[in-house]
Amino acid sequence: MIQLTQTVQKGGCAAKVSATELRKILAQVQFPPNDQNVLVDGGLFDDAAIYKITEDLALVQTLDFFTPIVDSPRYFGEVAAANALSDVYAMGGEPKTALAILAFPLATMESQVIVEVLQGASDKIKEAGANFVGGHSIDDDTLKFGLSVTGVIHPQKVWSNSQAQVGDDLILTKSLGTGTICAGLKKQTYKESELSEVISSMSTLNRIRDLLNAEQLAAIHSATDITGFGLAGHGYQMASASRKTFRLYSSQVPMFSLAMTSLQAGNLTKAHRTNAHYVESNARFKITDPLRRQIFFDPQTSGGLLLAVNPRHTNEILKKLSQRFRTAAKIGEVVDSQDTSLVIEE
Amino acid sequence: MIQLTQTVQKGGCAAKVSATELRKILAQVQFPPNDQNVLVDGGLFDDAAIYKITEDLALVQTLDFFTPIVDSPRYFGEVAAANALSDVYAMGGEPKTALAILAFPLATMESQVIVEVLQGASDKIKEAGANFVGGHSIDDDTLKFGLSVTGVIHPQKVWSNSQAQVGDDLILTKSLGTGTICAGLKKQTYKESELSEVISSMSTLNRIRDLLNAEQLAAIHSATDITGFGLAGHGYQMASASRKTFRLYSSQVPMFSLAMTSLQAGNLTKAHRTNAHYVESNARFKITDPLRRQIFFDPQTSGGLLLAVNPRHTNEILKKLSQRFRTAAKIGEVVDSQDTSLVIEE
Repeated sequence: MIQLTQTVQKGGCAAKVSATELRKILAQVQFPPNDQNVLVDGGLFDDAAIYKITEDLALVQTLDFFTPIVDSPRYFGEVAAANALSDVYAMGGEPKTALAILAFPLATMESQVIVEVLQGASDKIKEAGANFVGGHSIDDDTLKFGLSVTGVIHPQKVWSNSQAQVGDDLILTKSLGTGTICAGLKKQTYKESELSEVISSMSTLNRIRDLLNAEQLAAIHSATDITGFGLAGHGYQMASASRKTFRLYSSQVPMFSLAMTSLQAGNLTKAHRTNAHYVESNARFKITDPLRRQIFFDPQTSGGLLLAVNPRHTNEILKKLSQRFRTAAKIGEVVDSQDTSLVIEE
Repeated sequence: MIQLTQTVQKGGCAAKVSATELRKILAQVQFPPNDQNVLVDGGLFDDAAIYKITEDLALVQTLDFFTPIVDSPRYFGEVAAANALSDVYAMGGEPKTALAILAFPLATMESQVIVEVLQGASDKIKEAGANFVGGHSIDDDTLKFGLSVTGVIHPQKVWSNSQAQVGDDLILTKSLGTGTICAGLKKQTYKESELSEVISSMSTLNRIRDLLNAEQLAAIHSATDITGFGLAGHGYQMASASRKTFRLYSSQVPMFSLAMTSLQAGNLTKAHRTNAHYVESNARFKITDPLRRQIFFDPQTSGGLLLAVNPRHTNEILKKLSQRFRTAAKIGEVVDSQDTSLVIEE
């Protein structure tokens, strides 16, 4: 059996270009102004864009792809698809179409591997109620796969990452730790069969609309999904865009059972370092244990949604979410802007 | 100065996975039926898809990316963008948004190279009247760049590749030969400065709507763009989808001035062989010179549109097109279906 993680240098969202490097590059490009129908341009190379088509219809568009994060082709396809679809869900949208981005080593990789990757993706796209309408494939040294996804949304009902309000509770829908655990898988510290909890989480669609009623949906003021920049990186972006401070409680943050032992074993990625650097001057950590800090920098592949919700609805929303997201939890609250965007308590 | 073509094994559309290999893989995946709003699903991994949003509005979606085909980062960005936008034009659509697909070697490539690639792409997206709304970047061994493009179109006005009618003239908007010439560039047989005709052609947008009036646009029955599978490959697909035969006149096919000498010098790609194999039993070549056959298999990057038009309008359409496409020419006509989809005359 092929072990996909052994065919690549860097896996999953850990292979993402760091936010700091990206900003430096993008600052040097002269982008013309977008037309007025671009409601959200997502800050190039991150999150989803919103493009208004009519007064009551807008497109939500995103694109994501990466190298294998798990060993089984079928799981890789499922996780890559769930990860790409997630940005549409994070904006409150409903996915409609998906195009594949596929690079694979024609000469050395069995075509059955590609069949399995595509089947995994196709199954997830179907589960999302969307259509797999095309894509592009090239011959390359290492396997990469992902999707460009387009969804629809009402222009007035977008969950941007800039609308968190003081007093909101912060809910995280999935456990953290995919970065360190998948790094351990790559080092062959773990077998894929030991990671069913993690793989099942990564392949779970971040679809929450169908679990909640209209009132509960309206209680969600702001949302983002946690991916390569980790909880700290994406939390910082959301807090900063909302001009608020997020107070997070380390003890309440859900983690996979293997996460801490994997960090302890030194399974780290370059992203752990660049994510720490990214939020350096924007986060105040009150935790003393350096390992417990690392979980905030852990790059997630197909991570959960971070939701800022009206506290009156927190409990009922959590109860509904737990039907699909077993470890969903309240992890903090939104407070008035302080000297750092993030304050992380023990 | 960095020479991008020296950083990769295979360049441009020549790195595309062959149509034969692709079909074999896709045939093994169990795709569920699409919903009724998918008007064209483009045969996975080729062409653009059409998704109906309302009775008078549909999305045209496509995705394309590749390794450097030219040496200058700015030109590479321009050509990659023009190439990706082309599929939307080939369906008769108007591009609205673009997302970037970017892979680059962080450790070894100057970030200025990426800035230039993005600037070239941004300039072309602007020229197309579309918006550069996001994308995704990963750390990778070799540079790859492309776009996922979404355009809009009236669902009743789609130029599919299946509507060529007997008696239609066939028009090709750009010269052939980018495959062999760029292979020569990669081998350093040519300097980039000698290829201004070719680079200018590859970075020209396949936008023809603004050149033609309503009557002329209605005279276009069917269209496709010529890319990695060459004139023979894409011509075969269009003829076959239309259940007709295309009679092409070799002597009328426009070629870059370097094309034949480059073929003569043996500048070939793997795609020349796989494209020949792809159409083997579906094309009857009446040309004796083997080199003149090769031009039909030459993989194009950002190649021209192949249009099937009502012959009463051929001359006026050609006259209008020549304002932007200097070498646009009538290259053949559509006839009743014969034993092969293509007949290629001297």
